[in-house]
Amino acid sequence: MSLYGIRTDLAIEAREMAGAQGGEIPGVWSEEVKEHGISVTRMHVQTEEGAKAIGKMPGHYVTLEVPELRRGDTDLQDQVATTFAREFEAFLSRLGIGPTASVFIVGLGNWNVTPDALGPIVVENTMVTRQFFELMPDQVSDGYRPVSAVAPGVLGTTGIESSDIVQGIAEKAKPDLIIAVDALAARSLERVNTTIQIADTGIHPGSGIGNKRKGLTKDILGVPCIAIGVPTVVYASTMVNNTMDMVFEHMKRHTDNTDPLFGVFGKMAETERLQLVKEVLEPLGHDLLVTPKEIDKFIEDIGNIIASGLNAALHTAVDTDNVAAYTH
Amino acid sequence: MSLYGIRTDLAIEAREMAGAQGGEIPGVWSEEVKEHGISVTRMHVQTEEGAKAIGKMPGHYVTLEVPELRRGDTDLQDQVATTFAREFEAFLSRLGIGPTASVFIVGLGNWNVTPDALGPIVVENTMVTRQFFELMPDQVSDGYRPVSAVAPGVLGTTGIESSDIVQGIAEKAKPDLIIAVDALAARSLERVNTTIQIADTGIHPGSGIGNKRKGLTKDILGVPCIAIGVPTVVYASTMVNNTMDMVFEHMKRHTDNTDPLFGVFGKMAETERLQLVKEVLEPLGHDLLVTPKEIDKFIEDIGNIIASGLNAALHTAVDTDNVAAYTH
Amino acid sequence: MSLYGIRTDLAIEAREMAGAQGGEIPGVWSEEVKEHGISVTRMHVQTEEGAKAIGKMPGHYVTLEVPELRRGDTDLQDQVATTFAREFEAFLSRLGIGPTASVFIVGLGNWNVTPDALGPIVVENTMVTRQFFELMPDQVSDGYRPVSAVAPGVLGTTGIESSDIVQGIAEKAKPDLIIAVDALAARSLERVNTTIQIADTGIHPGSGIGNKRKGLTKDILGVPCIAIGVPTVVYASTMVNNTMDMVFEHMKRHTDNTDPLFGVFGKMAETERLQLVKEVLEPLGHDLLVTPKEIDKFIEDIGNIIASGLNAALHTAVDTDNVAAYTH
Amino acid sequence: MSLYGIRTDLAIEAREMAGAQGGEIPGVWSEEVKEHGISVTRMHVQTEEGAKAIGKMPGHYVTLEVPELRRGDTDLQDQVATTFAREFEAFLSRLGIGPTASVFIVGLGNWNVTPDALGPIVVENTMVTRQFFELMPDQVSDGYRPVSAVAPGVLGTTGIESSDIVQGIAEKAKPDLIIAVDALAARSLERVNTTIQIADTGIHPGSGIGNKRKGLTKDILGVPCIAIGVPTVVYASTMVNNTMDMVFEHMKRHTDNTDPLFGVFGKMAETERLQLVKEVLEPLGHDLLVTPKEIDKFIEDIGNIIASGLNAALHTAVDTDNVAAYTH
Repeated sequence: MSLYGIRTDLAIEAREMAGAQGGEIPGVWSEEVKEHGISVTRMHVQTEEGAKAIGKMPGHYVTLEVPELRRGDTDLQDQVATTFAREFEAFLSRLGIGPTASVFIVGLGNWNVTPDALGPIVVENTMVTRQFFELMPDQVSDGYRPVSAVAPGVLGTTGIESSDIVQGIAEKAKPDLIIAVDALAARSLERVNTTIQIADTGIHPGSGIGNKRKGLTKDILGVPCIAIGVPTVVYASTMVNNTMDMVFEHMKRHTDNTDPLFGVFGKMAETERLQLVKEVLEPLGHDLLVTPKEIDKFIEDIGNIIASGLNAALHTAVDTDNVAAYTH
Repeated sequence: MSLYGIRTDLAIEAREMAGAQGGEIPGVWSEEVKEHGISVTRMHVQTEEGAKAIGKMPGHYVTLEVPELRRGDTDLQDQVATTFAREFEAFLSRLGIGPTASVFIVGLGNWNVTPDALGPIVVENTMVTRQFFELMPDQVSDGYRPVSAVAPGVLGTTGIESSDIVQGIAEKAKPDLIIAVDALAARSLERVNTTIQIADTGIHPGSGIGNKRKGLTKDILGVPCIAIGVPTVVYASTMVNNTMDMVFEHMKRHTDNTDPLFGVFGKMAETERLQLVKEVLEPLGHDLLVTPKEIDKFIEDIGNIIASGLNAALHTAVDTDNVAAYTH
Repeated sequence: MSLYGIRTDLAIEAREMAGAQGGEIPGVWSEEVKEHGISVTRMHVQTEEGAKAIGKMPGHYVTLEVPELRRGDTDLQDQVATTFAREFEAFLSRLGIGPTASVFIVGLGNWNVTPDALGPIVVENTMVTRQFFELMPDQVSDGYRPVSAVAPGVLGTTGIESSDIVQGIAEKAKPDLIIAVDALAARSLERVNTTIQIADTGIHPGSGIGNKRKGLTKDILGVPCIAIGVPTVVYASTMVNNTMDMVFEHMKRHTDNTDPLFGVFGKMAETERLQLVKEVLEPLGHDLLVTPKEIDKFIEDIGNIIASGLNAALHTAVDTDNVAAYTH
Repeated sequence: MSLYGIRTDLAIEAREMAGAQGGEIPGVWSEEVKEHGISVTRMHVQTEEGAKAIGKMPGHYVTLEVPELRRGDTDLQDQVATTFAREFEAFLSRLGIGPTASVFIVGLGNWNVTPDALGPIVVENTMVTRQFFELMPDQVSDGYRPVSAVAPGVLGTTGIESSDIVQGIAEKAKPDLIIAVDALAARSLERVNTTIQIADTGIHPGSGIGNKRKGLTKDILGVPCIAIGVPTVVYASTMVNNTMDMVFEHMKRHTDNTDPLFGVFGKMAETERLQLVKEVLEPLGHDLLVTPKEIDKFIEDIGNIIASGLNAALHTAVDTDNVAAYTH
C-alpha cells in the first residue's frame, strides 16, 4: 500500500506518486535510458526507508515503456523483445543464475479472461526444454538450459491458490529460478499494453489482476523469483477518478478563477474522492475493467514479445538479434 | 440522434431520456409486464412526432430486462429464451411472416473482439435448414422452415460494408425475412448483458458497436428486417460521465447546501460535460470499453439464449418449453 | 500389454481380445445392462490370473457404450450424464469416499490438440468449490464437498511429467481422492467418442494419447485414483490393420476358395502384419491419427457429459435428474 | 475425374497418375525448379487432349513442395512465403491483373473443423485495404491496391452454397480478380501441409474438403479466379488403400516369389480395391480423416505463409524479402 492509499503494481508509478512533490527519494536509486522509442527505467530500492517511501519491496525493478507498442509495428515489437532480453540477462547475472541453471516459468492468470491471459500466453510460446535434459541429457545441444513452464490457473477455476500449485510443482521440478509472468492493473490507460516491468522481488499477495492471497517469493519458494508484469487493464473506479482529475486540470487551464469551479468536490483529497467513486460504482459489480477494443490482439502481441525475449535471454543458442523468429 | 445529443441504441433508454421530466410522450405507446424476474416492455412508436420526440424510428420495440441474468442461473436463462421466443413470434405474425417463410439470420460484429462477437455466436448456434429445402425438399419434416445464417464480418476485417455483403447474399438466397443480431453500446452498466431488444425497424447507420455507414432496412433489402440487439459494453466516456452524475447525486443526498458543492462544473449541461470528458480521454485512444471481467462467459450465455429462442420461434417443431436443448 | 501384443486402454476391448476364442475368463467377472440406448458393462478383474489373462490391472472397470452418442441428441446426452453419475457414485461408495471427502480432478492431455483436449475441457466445466471451504468454511451450503481441478498440461508443453505436477499439487491440496480424466486411443472407430470407461486402477504409464512415463496410482499419490477415459482417436496403423482384416473377412464371405485369396499376406499373424504396417507408415510421421471430421464438437459434447455427471455424483445438492443444467 | 477413377485436387498428382507408365503427356507442359528445399513445379495444361489425359482443366498450375515444412523452421517458412509471392506475381501478370486492380480473397472452408480452417485463417491474416480506397481514396499511400476478404462459411453452417455467397458479395464489391483459398484432400500423407498449389482455373464443384455443388470460376463470377489449395488431410479410405499398396511393395522387395503372396487380392485393380475398402469403412461414418497430431499448428503456420505471400504479391509497398513481418 502506498502513502496515498492507491495501490499500484508498477514501481515506476509508485515512485511518481511518492515523488509527486519533486525531488529525490532517499534509498531509491534510478536511471532512465531512451532508444528506439523504448524508455528503460532501472530502479533500485536500496533501503527499507526507500521501500517505505514508495510502498514497494527493496529490490531491482526495470521498466520498459513503449508508447507506440499498440500500433502493431512488428519491427518495434522485435526491438522491444531484444531490449527485454538484454535487461533480463542483467537480472540473471545479478542473481548469479548461470547459463545452465534450470528455470521454471509460471504464467499466472486466467486463460478465459482476455486481459488476464498474458501469463498463459507467454507459457504457450516459451521454448520448453527440461524434458530433453531429463530423458536424453547426452543429446541436448550446447547453449540451452532446462526450462519448464506451467500456467497454474486461478483460484476461482482450480479451487487451489496458484501459489500452492507453483510451490508443489517446484518441489518436484526443483528449478534454480522461478519466473512469474502476470497481468497487472494500471493507474493510467497510457500504460495499458505499453509497459513491461521486471522485478527480482517476486509476486506479493494482492498484486496482479486476480486476488492472490499468497505470494511467490524466495521465502516461500526457496529459490529466487523474478516477476514480469504488464498492465493490461485499468479498473473502472481508477479510471473515473483519473478522468475527473484530468477534467479539473483541463478546466483550470481554461479559466482564471478556479475556486468556485468545483466547490467542495474539487477540494476533496484524492483517496476520499476515489472512495466515493467506488461506493457509487459498487452496485454495478466489482470487477469492471476498462480495456481498449483491440485487447485480444494487444495481449497476443505483448505475450509473444515476452516469450521471445525470455527464449533469447535463457538460451545462449537463441540469438537476441532475431528473437522473434523463435515463437509463432 | 436523441434530443440530448447522447445517442442510445435502446428505445427504452431513449424514451427515459426524452421523458425525463415525466409524463406521456405523444405518439409513443408502451406497456410493461413482469414475470419470472423478466421485465418485458412493449413499445410502439406510432407517429413521426413520437419518433422525433424520442429519437427512434417509428415501429415496434420489445425489450427484455433481466437484472439477474449475469448470475449464470441456467433455469433463468431457459426462461428468458422462452420469453424471447414468445415475443419474437408476435413480431413474426405482426409482419405477416408465415410458418414456411424463409429467414436469413445475419450475425453482425467481429469474432475477434469479445464484446462485439454476439452476432457471430448467435449464428454459430442457430439451426440452419435452408440447404435441406434446396437439396432434398421432399424429405424435410413438417414444422421447419428454411433458415440460413451468415456472420458477414466487419468493415475493418473484410474491407466491405457488412450491409453490402448482406444485400449481396440476400439477392442470392432470396429470404422472406432478415433477422440482424448486433451487440450494442449501453448508457449504463446495469444493462450490459442483461437486456435484449427486438425491433422491426432494422439496423440503422451508426448503431451497434462498430461504425456502420449503411443500414439494414426494408428499403435497402427489399424484405422486412427485424433487429435483435444486446448492450454488451459501455463506452468509457459515457461511463465516466454517468459516474460523475452519480457522485453528484450521492453527495447531494448527504449534504444540505449543494450550491457551492461542485461550482461551475456541476452546473454544466450534460452534453457539455460529456464533450469535455471526451476531449480529455481522446489522447488515450478512441475505443475504450468498460466491460465486466466475466465478459466472455456473459456473451456466450446470452448468445445461446438468443439462438435457442430463435430456433423455437422459427420452427414450430421446436418446442418453446424446452428451447435450450437445441443448442450446445 | 495384452496377449496379442496390441495394447488397448479399454478393459472391455482387452477382454474381447483375450476371450476371442469364447468362454469365460477365470478371475474376470462381468455383467452387462442395457437401457435408454446405453450399454453399461461392469467388470471386476478379481485375481492376478485374470489380470494376466486380459492384460489389465486388478480392479473395477465400468464401461458406458452409447453407439448413437455422436448424433448430437441432447436428450441422450443428458441420459448418459445421469447414468455416468450413478455409476460413478457406486465407485465412490465402493472406495469408501464419503460425501464430504475432498476431491481433486485432473484433466490430462493437451489443450491445443483437439482429440487430446478432453481432460482440460472436463476441468473447465467442473464445479470447483474447494476455495469456499478454505476461505469461508462456515458459509458453504450443505450438499457440497471440496472439489479442486487442474489441467496440468503435457510433457511436451510443460517440460515436466504430468504425474509429477499432479503429485506436487496433491501434496499441497491434500485431497482424499483424485479423479484423472484422459483421452484414449481406441482399436476401433465405432468406439471413438461413444465410449466412457471408469476404473479404480488409476492411470498407468503409457496409457492415454500422449506418452506418459509415470502413472497416477494410489501407490504414487497416496490416495485412491479413479480414471475416466474416453477413446477419441484411432492410430492410423491400427486403423489400416483393422480395415485389412475387415476387407479379408468381407472377401471371404463372398467367395468359396479363400486359400489363394491373400496368399502369404493373409496368413500372417496379426502382430506381424501390424508391425509391417507400422514399418511402412513410419516415414510419414509417428502420430497419425484417424478422427471423424466433427471431432471438435464431439469432444466438447462428451466433455460436458462427463463434467455434468461428475458435478452430480460429487455434490449431493446437485441433482442427477437434471445434471446437464450445471455446466454450459 | 481422372482416368483412374481416383480424384485428386492436385494437378501434380493427376499428372503422376496419368503418366505412371512414364513418358510425356501430349498437351501438358511442365518444368521443375528446386532451391532452398522448395521444389516448384510449373505446369501448363495446354490442350483439351492434355486436360482429358490428366483429368484437370486447361490452365496454369504451380505447385510448391516443401517436404520439411512441418518441422516448424521459421526461416524456411519465410522462404516459402517469398517463393509463393514470386510465383503468385507471375499469375497476376499472366492474367493481366495490374498493380491497382482490386482483389477479393475468399477463404473457403469451416472455421470449426481444424483441417478445413485454412481458408478462414488466410482471410484473418490478410491485409485488407478496400475500405480505405472507398472511404478516403486520397489518403491511401502508393503501392497498395484495394483488397477485400471474406470467409463465407460452408453449406452446413450457413444453409447457402458458398459459391452463391461469393457471387452475391462480388456483385457488390466488384473486384477485378477473385482469389479462392481452400483446404484439399491429398492422396498421400507426405503432401499434407507440405504442398501449395496455385491454379488459374478457379474452384470446381466437388473439389476441396467440403462438398461443393457449384464452383468458383470465371464463367460464374465474371472475373478471373485464382485458386490456392493446400492438402491438409487424407481420407481414411485413401490412406488404407495406399498403405496396402506400400505393404505389398515392401513385401515384394523382400521375397522372390511374389505370385502366391497376396493371391486374388493382390491382383485387383486399384479402383476395385479402393471400392472394397470404402464399402468396408462406410458403416463407420463418411468423413474419416487422417491427420497428424500437430494439425492445429501446421494449419496455422501454412495459413500465415500464404497470407504473408499474398500480402507481398498484391501490394508493391510490401516487400517480398520480408513478407512474414506483415502478419502475426
